[in-house]
Amino acid sequence: MPAVPMIELWRGGLLESVHMGHAVICDETGQVVQAWGDLDAVIYPRSSCKMVQALPLVESGAADRHGLTDAHLALACASHSGAAIHTQTVERWLAAIGLSESDLRCGTHLPWDNETKNSLVCSGRQPCQLHNNCSGKHAGFLTYSRHIKAGPEYVEPDHPMQQAVRAVFEELTGLPSPGWGIDGCSAPNFATTVHGLARAMAFFAAARETGDARERAAHRLVRAMGANPVLVAGEGRACTELMRAIGGRGAIKTGAEAVYVAILPEIGRAVALKIVDGGTRASEAAMTALLVHLGVLDPAHPVVRKFLDVELRSWRGLHAGEMRRAPGFPA
Amino acid sequence: MPAVPMIELWRGGLLESVHMGHAVICDETGQVVQAWGDLDAVIYPRSSCKMVQALPLVESGAADRHGLTDAHLALACASHSGAAIHTQTVERWLAAIGLSESDLRCGTHLPWDNETKNSLVCSGRQPCQLHNNCSGKHAGFLTYSRHIKAGPEYVEPDHPMQQAVRAVFEELTGLPSPGWGIDGCSAPNFATTVHGLARAMAFFAAARETGDARERAAHRLVRAMGANPVLVAGEGRACTELMRAIGGRGAIKTGAEAVYVAILPEIGRAVALKIVDGGTRASEAAMTALLVHLGVLDPAHPVVRKFLDVELRSWRGLHAGEMRRAPGFPA
Repeated sequence: MPAVPMIELWRGGLLESVHMGHAVICDETGQVVQAWGDLDAVIYPRSSCKMVQALPLVESGAADRHGLTDAHLALACASHSGAAIHTQTVERWLAAIGLSESDLRCGTHLPWDNETKNSLVCSGRQPCQLHNNCSGKHAGFLTYSRHIKAGPEYVEPDHPMQQAVRAVFEELTGLPSPGWGIDGCSAPNFATTVHGLARAMAFFAAARETGDARERAAHRLVRAMGANPVLVAGEGRACTELMRAIGGRGAIKTGAEAVYVAILPEIGRAVALKIVDGGTRASEAAMTALLVHLGVLDPAHPVVRKFLDVELRSWRGLHAGEMRRAPGFPA
Repeated sequence: MPAVPMIELWRGGLLESVHMGHAVICDETGQVVQAWGDLDAVIYPRSSCKMVQALPLVESGAADRHGLTDAHLALACASHSGAAIHTQTVERWLAAIGLSESDLRCGTHLPWDNETKNSLVCSGRQPCQLHNNCSGKHAGFLTYSRHIKAGPEYVEPDHPMQQAVRAVFEELTGLPSPGWGIDGCSAPNFATTVHGLARAMAFFAAARETGDARERAAHRLVRAMGANPVLVAGEGRACTELMRAIGGRGAIKTGAEAVYVAILPEIGRAVALKIVDGGTRASEAAMTALLVHLGVLDPAHPVVRKFLDVELRSWRGLHAGEMRRAPGFPA
């Protein structure tokens, strides 16, 4: 089954661009409730699976041992904007475990937060690894690595940290990973299918506070994300605004190249989607459409006009067109 | 015929994302030499047809009457970066015809040129309409409008300026336009097919210095673009670097939502392409691939590694994957 049209851009009454994708909604057991495109398409989850990458940190007891709060755990699952609220928390976290910015292996990029970026650029300062959107995930990797007394090169694929990630990733997706690649932050990213990714999210959606260590860890991560939407992304970003819009009733996470997942414990559903061309505007729109479809997002909420039914305007403010769902998507 | 895969992104030995598109190569008469996808797909050329929008300016004698140089004409066909070299020339041009920035109707956005943007942001100054990537096109619109003594609201669809654009656009594409939309700069943008757009570019490729007024105008615009690649876009931009790489042997122009055209008089060929998802990384890559395919771009030229065979690296510089041609594209 090929990818199906999901998001369209219209201008002057004509279709200008279209984004195709694969998506699946699972129930709490990982069974498919509804699907579009090819369930078995192999994808890289990229940052959408950060809560899986953070699971060893919590399940092992390392998070409790080091007194990590929900804010720390939200940052461990974040692709954050590199604003002060993010970088300062990660910096203090590293200090608390006796480490510093130089122990990170995520590399450096300009922060996405405009104010922080402009402050750096205008003062002639360089960004550091704390500004990397993955610095919280890496702080989590370092915390786990210290906990198990493993070496400092925690992004090496054969490091126990990454071996632990691979093991839990394959268990939760229900499939051996068909391969791995190097993510932007230099950590391995394990491939799976769209269904595999949704199945992993279903585990998180089903995880109870009263379950075993892994379930409790998953439950806590979802709670931490839902309770700290601005730490998971940043002001104005889709993950943050969508989590706020659904009133903290779950966790929603983007990944590079247009992957998106949602964990919705209250309704017992999990979602994974991939726009095949990697266009983030479309993955944000498609996730917004699916949240409305699933009844957790009010179609009249302003985020729907911000991320899905977006009005296209000229630089002088003239109406030019709109982004919208493709016919038949999601229903 | 549906769109065909053109550009792929690979990571860790697995296909991560793919861009589909339509493309056509025409000879000087507008006949199809080779095509991919649906020739008859209706598209908005967006900024890729700026040389068509500039044709009335030259053909009417307005350009000569006002002493416009090739630099002015390159800017009339440009989606420029808003660097000083662009904005100062447009500002002086407007002054020379007794007008100023406030007569523009293109609206304002931050310039794409990083140095200029940072200079504005860090000094707390606001961009003006001169920074709009279309300000040269609009200066051309204003010059023509003055020449024919038409009113100041030159982007209104019923203004003689836009009526002139529509007429020449339909003549050169060989088709009545099936509709129009408002472009980012508030000017009407007329739709056509991929073949129609390539046919218009074929007119430019065939236009001789010794032809009639329209041919001479088209010839001059192509020469002006090819001789001023940095004015058509800006340092580091694909149009600029690709035109330099082919040694000025034609004009190459991008349009928003991943349209790209090439006018190649020396080999008697014209190209038009549209990536259906609107992803500019792919339209730049696909155009690069077609220029190599047509023999006008050396496959060993550094631009090929910059825009087509792009190595993907992590923020720490680790090799992560690559962008490349899809199998069968272009040959």
